[in-house]
Amino acid sequence: MHTYLDCIPCLFKQGLSAARFSGADESVQRRVLEAIAGKIPELSLKRSPPEVALSIHNVIKEEIGSRDPYYIIKKRSNAEAMHLYPALEEKVNNSKDPLRMAVELAIAGNLIDYGARTDLDLETELETIFKREESVIDTQEARLFALETFKTALSDAETLLIIGDNAGEIVFDKLLLQVIRNAYPDIGMQYGVREKPVINDVTMEDALDTDLDSFARIVSTGCETPGAVLSLCSPEFVNLFKEADVIISKGQGNFEALSEEGRRTNGKLFFLFSVKCPVIAAAVSKLVGDSALVGDAALVEGN
Amino acid sequence: MHTYLDCIPCLFKQGLSAARFSGADESVQRRVLEAIAGKIPELSLKRSPPEVALSIHNVIKEEIGSRDPYYIIKKRSNAEAMHLYPALEEKVNNSKDPLRMAVELAIAGNLIDYGARTDLDLETELETIFKREESVIDTQEARLFALETFKTALSDAETLLIIGDNAGEIVFDKLLLQVIRNAYPDIGMQYGVREKPVINDVTMEDALDTDLDSFARIVSTGCETPGAVLSLCSPEFVNLFKEADVIISKGQGNFEALSEEGRRTNGKLFFLFSVKCPVIAAAVSKLVGDSALVGDAALVEGN
Repeated sequence: MHTYLDCIPCLFKQGLSAARFSGADESVQRRVLEAIAGKIPELSLKRSPPEVALSIHNVIKEEIGSRDPYYIIKKRSNAEAMHLYPALEEKVNNSKDPLRMAVELAIAGNLIDYGARTDLDLETELETIFKREESVIDTQEARLFALETFKTALSDAETLLIIGDNAGEIVFDKLLLQVIRNAYPDIGMQYGVREKPVINDVTMEDALDTDLDSFARIVSTGCETPGAVLSLCSPEFVNLFKEADVIISKGQGNFEALSEEGRRTNGKLFFLFSVKCPVIAAAVSKLVGDSALVGDAALVEGN
Repeated sequence: MHTYLDCIPCLFKQGLSAARFSGADESVQRRVLEAIAGKIPELSLKRSPPEVALSIHNVIKEEIGSRDPYYIIKKRSNAEAMHLYPALEEKVNNSKDPLRMAVELAIAGNLIDYGARTDLDLETELETIFKREESVIDTQEARLFALETFKTALSDAETLLIIGDNAGEIVFDKLLLQVIRNAYPDIGMQYGVREKPVINDVTMEDALDTDLDSFARIVSTGCETPGAVLSLCSPEFVNLFKEADVIISKGQGNFEALSEEGRRTNGKLFFLFSVKCPVIAAAVSKLVGDSALVGDAALVEGN
């Protein structure tokens, strides 16, 4: 998808929060906003939001003088989520439908997104997750319209590729991988991470920090955008993308990058994310704050 | 209060929504954002948010080519609120404490703010108002900590000045004036409006459209900022401000302009507004979405 004018105020919010997460003082925070303002006239809205975000975050990094302004918050997100892993695992194991529960948690884990918000309290978010998980399972069947399709796709699959999104969230993805491993032990699993730090997105370091490699082979997308834009990914990653039987794209950034690939992926691509802005809400006919498990077929049909 | 860096992303949001409310096409919307970006380096954060907003909205108006981009939405807000007036009036009349209910509605009416949000549905907001009004009256006594002080101030007052905020909301202020007139028939009432159109703020035209002049004399603040910055107001208005026994300041813009006047107004100034952003929430120790009836004494004491 292309970038919307509505994305522009958000770029400023991201710049300010990146500067603050990095510990920069107010004068640097202001310089960051001015530097972003300087880039507005040359922004190409024809490019996807992750491409635009990369160009802006490069400006932000340069102004702050840090190659990874979110470094500390990423480490903290991973550690906090790892601390909760045993409880999450128990929640899933005690569930009537562990795969469904793991999918719910993997979507909910996408709430951990310091690009979209800065006031996150993981404990509070998890309470929301558990509350929502029950209410969704009880009453909001319709929201998970792609779940059965997803299960069918997995049952026929030999290979699975998950394209990761955020630090912290990656621990929820690990749990999903664990559940898939238990249910479908023969599926070969791979997990895609960003080539370099951008916003609070997962890199190889986050995958190793959280021992995700005990369930999946970690691969870099080969691109730096906060969303896997295939034209910018490495040939190796594009090949994996083509060859995988099932692909799980986590988060809004990957949705923004990949939503138009649906036409070429023939029902194997599933988007799991929390809806974080009105533009995406409109694209998937949901509300901000909703969970989304959207199959590519649904997007092609315009559902 | 001074302007915060956090206000900058909001200025872009306001520019985009102003352009859209005026019916401008996408190329004009983009030009508006670029024009705001061009102003960021020279923004003085020492000035109050209403002063900064005025300078930005002048740029927006120039780029759009309209002196009042919110004209249509203001007319609609007034008409919709007037349509609901009889029901609101009944709600107040059937209340155990009509003044309290009218205060609740006047704060809730401040939700009608197309500067802070663009997706407002008045009917939905009113349901929220009625729901909230009951729950606040039942359980959230503490939020209205200044109500009794406010009542005492009114009972001793000969003159009252309300400084209005938004179109639509003005109808809720009219109801408050009506209730005060019934309870304290001898108070002379005046209602301050902006000198010229800015955002969706009330002007003389809105006051006359909604027959507010049947309860109060309408006066212009004499200034164009979306918030009555006294140093920019007319000497006549400043005099009214000094002489009034009780002043009700409606909305965040007036709070931003007047919160520091508390030290000089000696307990006669009351701020009624819905909290719309984290910066203001922190200033009054509340949450975004909360109702606020804050007496100036509380601000001086730092409560």
